[in-house]
Formats: sequence, C-alpha cells, structure tokens
Amino acid sequence: MSTSARQRFTIEGDFVMEHGGTLKDPVIAYETWGTLNFQRDNAVLLFTGLSPSAHAASSSKDSTTGWWEQMLGPRRPIDTTKYFVICVNSLGSCFGSTGPASIDPVTGEQYRTAFPVLTIEDIATSAQRLVESLDITHLHAVVGASMGGMTALVHTILFPGVAEGLVSISSAARALPYSIALRSLQREMIRSDPDWQGGNYEGHGPVTGMRLARKLGMMTYRSATEFAQRFGRERVPEERQSGDLFGVEFEVESYLEAHANKFIGTFDANCYLYLSRAMDLFDVADHGGSLAHGLARVGARRALIVGVETDALFPLVQQREIADGLRRDDREVDFRALPSIQGHDSFLVDMDRFRPVLCDFFNCTMNQPGRLRSV
Amino acid sequence: MSTSARQRFTIEGDFVMEHGGTLKDPVIAYETWGTLNFQRDNAVLLFTGLSPSAHAASSSKDSTTGWWEQMLGPRRPIDTTKYFVICVNSLGSCFGSTGPASIDPVTGEQYRTAFPVLTIEDIATSAQRLVESLDITHLHAVVGASMGGMTALVHTILFPGVAEGLVSISSAARALPYSIALRSLQREMIRSDPDWQGGNYEGHGPVTGMRLARKLGMMTYRSATEFAQRFGRERVPEERQSGDLFGVEFEVESYLEAHANKFIGTFDANCYLYLSRAMDLFDVADHGGSLAHGLARVGARRALIVGVETDALFPLVQQREIADGLRRDDREVDFRALPSIQGHDSFLVDMDRFRPVLCDFFNCTMNQPGRLRSV
Repeated sequence: MSTSARQRFTIEGDFVMEHGGTLKDPVIAYETWGTLNFQRDNAVLLFTGLSPSAHAASSSKDSTTGWWEQMLGPRRPIDTTKYFVICVNSLGSCFGSTGPASIDPVTGEQYRTAFPVLTIEDIATSAQRLVESLDITHLHAVVGASMGGMTALVHTILFPGVAEGLVSISSAARALPYSIALRSLQREMIRSDPDWQGGNYEGHGPVTGMRLARKLGMMTYRSATEFAQRFGRERVPEERQSGDLFGVEFEVESYLEAHANKFIGTFDANCYLYLSRAMDLFDVADHGGSLAHGLARVGARRALIVGVETDALFPLVQQREIADGLRRDDREVDFRALPSIQGHDSFLVDMDRFRPVLCDFFNCTMNQPGRLRSV
Repeated sequence: MSTSARQRFTIEGDFVMEHGGTLKDPVIAYETWGTLNFQRDNAVLLFTGLSPSAHAASSSKDSTTGWWEQMLGPRRPIDTTKYFVICVNSLGSCFGSTGPASIDPVTGEQYRTAFPVLTIEDIATSAQRLVESLDITHLHAVVGASMGGMTALVHTILFPGVAEGLVSISSAARALPYSIALRSLQREMIRSDPDWQGGNYEGHGPVTGMRLARKLGMMTYRSATEFAQRFGRERVPEERQSGDLFGVEFEVESYLEAHANKFIGTFDANCYLYLSRAMDLFDVADHGGSLAHGLARVGARRALIVGVETDALFPLVQQREIADGLRRDDREVDFRALPSIQGHDSFLVDMDRFRPVLCDFFNCTMNQPGRLRSV
C-alpha cells in the first residue's frame, strides 16, 4: 500500500507573475527524500520536465516507482542518505501545484485560459519561495532535465547566491525555432480539437488533440536511429491489425498508439498548453540583454551540463552553448556529450550512461553496477 | 495567358493493382517537353513527389512556373532541346490522373476510400503503360525525387530493360519507421478531423487536418539548421499578432501558417492519404526477398544517387544504401551527398547545388551561372 508523499506549500498573498498578472495564494506541491542536515546545506532542488509530477522516486510514504527512480534514493547517484532532495511540481502543472486547472480563489472558478502567461521564471521563483519557507538559504545544487533544465538554469540566474551547483540535462538557454514550431503544432492539435472548446471543456476535454500531441511528442523525444533499430519495418500480427488501410499496421504505429492511450486522462490540456508555451518564451538573453550576459549572471560555482547526440528537440549544440557560456576561471564546468540513441528522452531510459555522470557530480558511492541495471 | 499543357492517356480495360483490386480505364495525366527523336531513344521519364502535378516546367502551351522550373527546359540541366521529357501525375493523385477523388466508371461515384490499396509499384506500372503507348521502348533515364525517387527506382526493377539511366534524389529503397510514424501521424490528423467524415466529405473536407498535416510536412521537409538561421527567435510585428497567448507570435509560426494556408484547397485529402500510405508500404525487398536482391534487379546501367545531409525524412544513410546496393562492375554509380541546409526539400530550393549535379548526369551545356541563379 502506498500513501501519497506529496506535501503542499502555499505562497500566501499575491504572487506576481513575470509577464503580468497575479495568482492569489498559489500552492506548490512537492516531495522530499532524505533529511536536511544540521547546517541546512545538503538540499538538492529538482525541477521536472513538462509532464511529470513531483514523484521522482519511491519512498517509505509512497512505494510507487517515480519518474527518476534509478537516479534518486539511498546509494543511488543522488544519494538520499547524504542529500535532502526536494522535487517540485511546476507552477502551471496539474499535480497539486496551482495551474490552469486549479480553482482561482478570487472567482471560485477554474482559471482555464484566464491563467496569466506562465514563464519558466515563474516556476523557478515559486519554487524558491518554497525553499525559503523551509529555512534553506543554501542549496547544494539545482538539477533539471528538459524544461527542468531551463528552470534550474534560470534559478541560478535569478537567485545567484543560493545554489552552489547546477545540473542541466538536455535543456536549452533559449528555445530554438524548430522546437518552438514543434510545440506550436502540438498546441494547435489540441486547440483544433472541437472538444477543447476554447479551454472550457469538462472532463478530459480534447482527447483526440492530446493523443496527436503526445504522438508527436514521443517522436521528438526519441530518435530515428532508435526507431530503426527497435521497430524496423515489423508489422503488428494480423489479428491486432484493424483491417483499416490507414489503421495500425506497423509496429511503430502500435508503439505510438500505446503511448498516446497511456497519456490520456493523465494531464490537463490547458496546463499542457501553458507549460508548452512557457518553454517557447524562454530565453536567457532576457536576463542581461544577450545570451552571454545572461549566462554570466549564473551564480553556481560548479556546473554539469549533459546532452545527447541524437536529441533533436534540445540538440547537443545547445548544451555546448550553455557549457561554453558558463566557463569561467572560478567555476568548474563539466560538459558531457553522450552517444545515447534514445534522443531527448535518454535521461529517463539510458540509465547506464546517465547514472555514472550524475554519480560523479554528486560524489556518490554507487552499488555494484549489476544491482543497478536498467529495467 | 496560359493554356494547359496537360495530356491524358487512358489505360483501356482493367488495370490490376499490386495489392489487389482493379481500376477500370484509369487515366494518366502527363506533360511533355522537347521532341522525341527519330531513334525514339531520347525520352526521360520524370516522377513527382507526393504533392506536385505533372507541370514540372513552363512551356509554350503553359507559361506558368513548374515545380522544377530551373531544372527542366532549353539549356537547363535536363535540356529539352536534347531530351523528350515526360512527367506523369502519379496514379492516385488528383491532378488529372485517376485517384480516390475520381469518378469510378463502374459505379458512377467517386472512389473515395473504395479506391484499392495504392503502391509505388502501381504508379510505376501505370506510367510505363503510358510510355509504351508512345511507342517508346527505351528511356534515356527515369528520374525522381522523394516519392518520385522510389517510383523511378522500382521502375528500373519492374522494367529492367527500359531505362538506361536512373536518377534518385532524396529517396529511399524502403520506408524507415521514423518516416512511417511521421506520415502515420499526418494521416491521423486528417482522419481525426470530423470534416473528413470517413472519407465522404464534400468540398475541401478536412481543412483543419490538412493544415496540421501540411505544417508537420513542412517541418519534416526542412531542417532545424535552416529554421535557426532563417527565423531565430524573431517575433512577428505586434500588429500581426493575434493577441491570443497560443496564437502566432514567432516568425517560425507565421511561416508554417502561411504554408498551411497556401496548401488548403490544392490537394484532395483522400488522395493524400493513399499516396502517403503508398510510401510507407514501399520496400525494395518485396522484389527478390531482400534489399540487396531487390537492388540487384535494377536494370539501369548508369545511376545518379543524390542525398542531402540535413534530410530527416529520407536521411543520407538511405541514399548511400541505394548507391552501395547498385554498385556493380558494369554499372556507373555516382553518389552525391550535398551539404544543403534545407533538408528534404533542398532539391526544390537549393538549385545552385542541384543544377550542376543533374547537369553532369545529363551532359548539359548550362547557361552562364549568373543567368540561372535561384530565385
């Protein structure tokens, strides 16, 4: 039996958003692992990608597998016997934190599209308010992958004295037009679904649009190389084919279908739209006038920047851009380009490559490699 | 004033399709340029990609610009003062050839989804019937890019004694799962549009689905590198922004919007579905049991295989696969990997790179380079 390990912190009063508008008494949902030490300096703040909740790993309070289960826990790369790890559900999301699906206490109605424009900065700032509420003034590190990497990066710019270390994985210092276009198309799929109803749907709403968006998502999260090795031109068995000329015939179509089905009902469509747009808007150049000036404001004294060769959504060139921009005499910057074939999602699945990299940064003492193999 | 240069050839009687089913008296629309010589051996057969018509270039009969205007004409790389060029509108398309939008003479109704499964082989075979009707037994070359390259390739397998030369550009000997998945998603966008009505729409039908499919198409036809150079993070001027948080804000979104708008009403949705699926089904291994055996059946004695480094839909590795599979002591194979940044569409836009390559193959005497610059 699992109970929820989720905790909630309310930012009391008006929370002013970066692009205007306020939220009244917004809530940040979070989970923690490990214990804050006496010096209160062993905390690690973990940001998520677009779709996960704060449940990054199992714990005694919640035994269900988390989204970064193999990375986080006792004697895992981010060792929770040494670190006090805090993972936040991003502001704007729908797993306990305030977002477009939440009730606006001012109106008593769901925010929906009346939610103010959301930025990555808003996610970082709201999380920092939580950190402060825990009486933590010094973070051992901020960590994030994908959208979470953007959030971690901007946290070190907005609050330069707080985090000593920065771990950015398959992220970006600014959204590039190809990634903007892909996300824009995903949003259009959702908004074009008549069931979106301008955001005023009941229940799951635009299921078809969300299915399409998820399929395109899966394609941009993985790589052509992986698909070629994994699926080739394999057909699904005849009994599982629909018989429809345009239905599922190839295994790769069946794979995307399964992922789309699994996603439905797990994520609110309006929250998806807001978080997706927040990534497009992200540009470190907003902090200082240029990318170089923005990165010069990063306060972390140690940085680990990790990217993957097959990542089409947050390409390796963007990881190198961050690493190069951070290099300074008084900062240790470790840049790792991994040859994983799973594209953007590699940090979630190619654990044999990612574990040692994070382990190095967090000075972990890992279990026998045999005990930690990918499953 | 332009009049149409389109000609029509009727394949009389029942045309048996590769995967079963027949078409009664199907029509192949085509255009020609130049003159068939006395020996009847200077003909070049040109196949198109998914969406163009047979109007590859302007002529005295039709002065409108064709889809390969700069490649085809007097003293252009495929010099129509030397060659008799025939471009066919693919079977299954909607620019004069019989396809799902045509009236089935048996029922008096549009075929729609009652059209039999279409294959690349059907397109090649129906074109060959046209070639035979013109009393041409020997082709100087078959030429095609993208889907047209698949068609040209399989033409040289199905009719090995006919074409002396093969030109395959940004094509494939078989569809890979990543490309299948992208096309499958495009088809799902169209079929999910309530206005598709299971194929029984009137008028333009699933406009929203076609718009989405076209946008995804444009993204897979171009490259992230080109988008980064061309659009960066430029915003459209405020007066052209919709004011909607999820509307067009970035130039790259405006670019895709313009392309989607231009496509609407120009292509029949059911035809699109059939042609798209035909590409997924294509596998040279169907001719001989393996890719190697299939390519061994290619009859052409000269081959030019061209690919582009940034092509994500028909990647360079697939062009090399064709070239390597064709190498034989008694065949001249020229493989060219071009560094164009426009991805799959480069053959339509990066003419300064493509013209000399085709010119070499066709022994052309080009005009001054200055006269032929890309526009």
